[in-house]
Amino acid sequence: MCGSGRIGRVHAANIAAHPGVNLAWVADPVISSASEVAALYGARATGSTDDVFADTSLDAVVVCSPTPTHIDLIRAAVGRGVAVLCEKPIDLDIGRVRSCLADLAGSTAAVMMGFNRRFDPAFAAIRQRVQAGEIGRLEQLTITSRDPAPPPASYIAASGGIFRDMSIHDLDMARFFIPDVVEVTAHGANVSSDYIAEAGDFDSAAITLRGRNGELVSITNSRHSAYGYDQRLEAFGSQGMLRADNISPTTVRSFGTLAVEGADPYEPFFLERYAAAYRRELDAFVDAIHTGIPCSPGFEDGMAALILADAAAESASTGKTIAIEEVITHEGALRK
Amino acid sequence: MCGSGRIGRVHAANIAAHPGVNLAWVADPVISSASEVAALYGARATGSTDDVFADTSLDAVVVCSPTPTHIDLIRAAVGRGVAVLCEKPIDLDIGRVRSCLADLAGSTAAVMMGFNRRFDPAFAAIRQRVQAGEIGRLEQLTITSRDPAPPPASYIAASGGIFRDMSIHDLDMARFFIPDVVEVTAHGANVSSDYIAEAGDFDSAAITLRGRNGELVSITNSRHSAYGYDQRLEAFGSQGMLRADNISPTTVRSFGTLAVEGADPYEPFFLERYAAAYRRELDAFVDAIHTGIPCSPGFEDGMAALILADAAAESASTGKTIAIEEVITHEGALRK
Amino acid sequence: MCGSGRIGRVHAANIAAHPGVNLAWVADPVISSASEVAALYGARATGSTDDVFADTSLDAVVVCSPTPTHIDLIRAAVGRGVAVLCEKPIDLDIGRVRSCLADLAGSTAAVMMGFNRRFDPAFAAIRQRVQAGEIGRLEQLTITSRDPAPPPASYIAASGGIFRDMSIHDLDMARFFIPDVVEVTAHGANVSSDYIAEAGDFDSAAITLRGRNGELVSITNSRHSAYGYDQRLEAFGSQGMLRADNISPTTVRSFGTLAVEGADPYEPFFLERYAAAYRRELDAFVDAIHTGIPCSPGFEDGMAALILADAAAESASTGKTIAIEEVITHEGALRK
Amino acid sequence: MCGSGRIGRVHAANIAAHPGVNLAWVADPVISSASEVAALYGARATGSTDDVFADTSLDAVVVCSPTPTHIDLIRAAVGRGVAVLCEKPIDLDIGRVRSCLADLAGSTAAVMMGFNRRFDPAFAAIRQRVQAGEIGRLEQLTITSRDPAPPPASYIAASGGIFRDMSIHDLDMARFFIPDVVEVTAHGANVSSDYIAEAGDFDSAAITLRGRNGELVSITNSRHSAYGYDQRLEAFGSQGMLRADNISPTTVRSFGTLAVEGADPYEPFFLERYAAAYRRELDAFVDAIHTGIPCSPGFEDGMAALILADAAAESASTGKTIAIEEVITHEGALRK
Repeated sequence: MCGSGRIGRVHAANIAAHPGVNLAWVADPVISSASEVAALYGARATGSTDDVFADTSLDAVVVCSPTPTHIDLIRAAVGRGVAVLCEKPIDLDIGRVRSCLADLAGSTAAVMMGFNRRFDPAFAAIRQRVQAGEIGRLEQLTITSRDPAPPPASYIAASGGIFRDMSIHDLDMARFFIPDVVEVTAHGANVSSDYIAEAGDFDSAAITLRGRNGELVSITNSRHSAYGYDQRLEAFGSQGMLRADNISPTTVRSFGTLAVEGADPYEPFFLERYAAAYRRELDAFVDAIHTGIPCSPGFEDGMAALILADAAAESASTGKTIAIEEVITHEGALRK
Repeated sequence: MCGSGRIGRVHAANIAAHPGVNLAWVADPVISSASEVAALYGARATGSTDDVFADTSLDAVVVCSPTPTHIDLIRAAVGRGVAVLCEKPIDLDIGRVRSCLADLAGSTAAVMMGFNRRFDPAFAAIRQRVQAGEIGRLEQLTITSRDPAPPPASYIAASGGIFRDMSIHDLDMARFFIPDVVEVTAHGANVSSDYIAEAGDFDSAAITLRGRNGELVSITNSRHSAYGYDQRLEAFGSQGMLRADNISPTTVRSFGTLAVEGADPYEPFFLERYAAAYRRELDAFVDAIHTGIPCSPGFEDGMAALILADAAAESASTGKTIAIEEVITHEGALRK
Repeated sequence: MCGSGRIGRVHAANIAAHPGVNLAWVADPVISSASEVAALYGARATGSTDDVFADTSLDAVVVCSPTPTHIDLIRAAVGRGVAVLCEKPIDLDIGRVRSCLADLAGSTAAVMMGFNRRFDPAFAAIRQRVQAGEIGRLEQLTITSRDPAPPPASYIAASGGIFRDMSIHDLDMARFFIPDVVEVTAHGANVSSDYIAEAGDFDSAAITLRGRNGELVSITNSRHSAYGYDQRLEAFGSQGMLRADNISPTTVRSFGTLAVEGADPYEPFFLERYAAAYRRELDAFVDAIHTGIPCSPGFEDGMAALILADAAAESASTGKTIAIEEVITHEGALRK
Repeated sequence: MCGSGRIGRVHAANIAAHPGVNLAWVADPVISSASEVAALYGARATGSTDDVFADTSLDAVVVCSPTPTHIDLIRAAVGRGVAVLCEKPIDLDIGRVRSCLADLAGSTAAVMMGFNRRFDPAFAAIRQRVQAGEIGRLEQLTITSRDPAPPPASYIAASGGIFRDMSIHDLDMARFFIPDVVEVTAHGANVSSDYIAEAGDFDSAAITLRGRNGELVSITNSRHSAYGYDQRLEAFGSQGMLRADNISPTTVRSFGTLAVEGADPYEPFFLERYAAAYRRELDAFVDAIHTGIPCSPGFEDGMAALILADAAAESASTGKTIAIEEVITHEGALRK
């Protein structure tokens, strides 16, 4: 495992609890962090990923290190025939991503992107039910995604902006339902965090996507939410609608003089909200390795999401709708 | 109309708004109250019900005066062939009620009891769906009924006790679903209002009824409720369940740091909560008069509810289950 | 009253039920319809609005006739000092609307626009709470509005298109919260009704508005909805969120083998869903006449909504965000 | 571990996943079952519990064997100073339970009863909030508990009846909130399963408890539920109410032509519904062993629940309210 930050620790715990998988290495330049995590699960710690890749018994690597390291680690793993589960985004530079994709051609090593929300039980269930035809033809998709609190200025500075850092999850979720997006229109605003505005980034955003078959997707993003992590999705079709609401820790409702039926605040942030999703994501990765079935979401999905995020950023700065000329699939086919 | 208190005013407004019905008289010993209500709707006011019954053009009377006057007014109305809608209870003395029933024999005047909850759109819908077989055989019924705040000591003193005054509505609701109740077990407690305990009455109660076909009914009562008027019902059957929850003024939900999905406090009390029920009750009364179909709930239903309330009071004081030997129907048939 | 179609009948019933207001005339070129409605409430019927305006005892007129007649009737009423409550839209031609506004200058007759949703108890409560500061600074507004079924081709042909006919309600709702809208971006799609596409109109739409203070508004529209009339609103602010959900006829929930907690289908369409709103709208109109306080929403609000609808139509056809150069207020002030 | 049936397997998996605890033995007379479970988690299998207790390295044992074996296994464990987590009930014979309690006097081995529902996150949260005073004085408790489908006739025959087998969980839950119960009244009915009636048992029940301080508890039980496992609780107090509803697998809601806002069927049965509770129960057991704090619920709680269950059975057969003369606490104090 490369990286032992907060997501790295989630993956480490899930790997340790997964039957038939062993956590061999924890690599992190902050060796104290690597050692701490490694000790918890009986793995070896190192400050250098070279040690990891020198281990010829390695089957797979989970990459949760900072974004700029992702492509090098993917190349290293794939070059050695080691499967990779890489946290999003692949990179903030689409040119580097395209170059990496070209290099992966012909490789048989599994590469999976960590778009964890695809494995959320509720979102996955809706998608499965949509594909089973339960609501007929999908016409509109509404995604609400608000973080509980904005990240610090240092994070913002390296994030690539709200569209590449935060909306990218929602853009991937849109592609989960509607893989062929043909247009992106985005709006950003600054309403809550002065330091984000000063960094030239937005703290509020609204994105509209158009799918090849006329589907309209509305995404609402905010860098803060007073009532906790807000993660919802509505799929509207010709024969009905399916909706996933937020998750409270329990079903307890309170009834008092000021309000009734009040639920406890939602799960605070992604580590809690998507705990099940992270476990199911690992299951899917392990299954893909065992069965040889291509990983989903794969490298191409990571690239496609970045293309949409880049388009969103361009749209927000130009006030124009951006056409997406290519459609990215596992088979690598372009629209034209 | 006899009585111009808070329920009287609800009925007066509904009569005035009902197409094809005119409010002719408002009678109340408090003549200022009668005059006030009469003036609102263009009716005549009087301090004596004699004036009302002397009006030979009268078709129907709504009785919302104090309980001790009910039987005399029913007799007066029926004796003149005038239809009656009488607020519950008929009387607190079952002997007087039986005697009145005997006197009504042979009369063709419509007599309807004001068990308004039968006309609540939600409860009525559940009963209709239960009767249509939607949940199969009805096995269990759960009724929760809590008033927002206890009445004053003066009211308690004349109320006949919690079972005859408050639970009687729930006992009638039970009979609405399960007309043939064979056993009553009741428990009372004193947990919130000292003056109610001092009056020898309870402020908290739990009642269990058994129906002829093994149905079990659980009723929970409280004289207070910090979160407003609590009026719920669950019907559980062999093939499913139907539930009616409380009603908030709007569908607005609030999301904050302390709680999410909180609704506004429920409708404060019966005048608001059952506003639609009162209107529909009047509709049913007018329809019964026009069509000649027997009123439902009728006098016998009022008597049956009082029999159950008496049994509940007896059970609560003796610690024994009370068998109900008779079953009261419109046809007057007894079980034995 | 001018017009006796389905909305006209709602207004007629509300006028008849309103204390202190009399329905004097029902005018409709379909004289049989006018007579039918007039007979219900003891009013006079006519095929010509001239008869109505010849009645010098007239205080106010409600205009629910076809859109092309609105401006002439407003002029006629205002010219005689008669108050007007006019159904939306004022007209489909912004030039005619501007011309009418110029003519109204100096008039003291009350003119109110029938944006009934402003009077919906839930939406009005949210707006009042937002203005009271409950959720802090308003940052994002999400409006979902889906009709149960598309109107016939004949209606579509004269409707002015989905933005001017349907979205205009949502654009006004956005202005109810955020009066100063500076940008409009809209997307239309054809996914459900071929005859709407053939008429050159859309059956699905997504609109994004930007307010002067960076507020982002997302509107989702569809001409059909398998689960009934879908009318929801979310106001998101710095300190929380307020949400209004759809309204089921009762609180009854069903529990079965296939699903649990299912509510009955929502109110079928606007006549039922907004029944309370229509009553409150009439109350507000009558109050405005009595108090002399300017009507809200007024003529200028009708014009502002049309300006936004025109911008939405332009944006949808050009793929560009449309800047709104003027801000319309009761005082007639322009932004620039 | 003694017993490798369905609950045994839940405990085995939880023990295996628990950091710092090792599953050493799986004992089951059905040796193939013991072996199967043992193999999963690297434990040793045996057909005889003697082998288990001969292992002097044993710290604790989890007893999930048939009820008649419980007391002997508790004695065996405690006699060797081995901690015990024993599934409910201790025994169906209160005399044997009392005798066992006497024998345990002076022992320091931890004994914990498997009333798993106390560890349900929702129920535990409500109890914690009630104890923190959030709803003031607790006045009424409502527990609904319906199994999805009745057990087979063979199970019924050995179950001790619905009160000792099924209601005992709810009686313990009542004691979790109101330890000092002074009266039990119970009603049973036969409405759904002929073979249960033929066995002299009930398939439907309603129980009312009275607490020392006037609290009233209403318990509703059914051996079947068409919409899945129904496990709810309401705590009503002087200042509000807290309610725990059932749990659906996800938050997904469906909106269609027949119903809206429908959730997926609830978790099918206790293994799924209480999965978190079983994990937390094991955590509490391990913590109690490590800290030496008395287990809760302890042996005395198991005995107290059985006393209430016996009283319920007696009440249901005699039609009388049964007084509970003793109050059982960890300190063994009797009421008198």
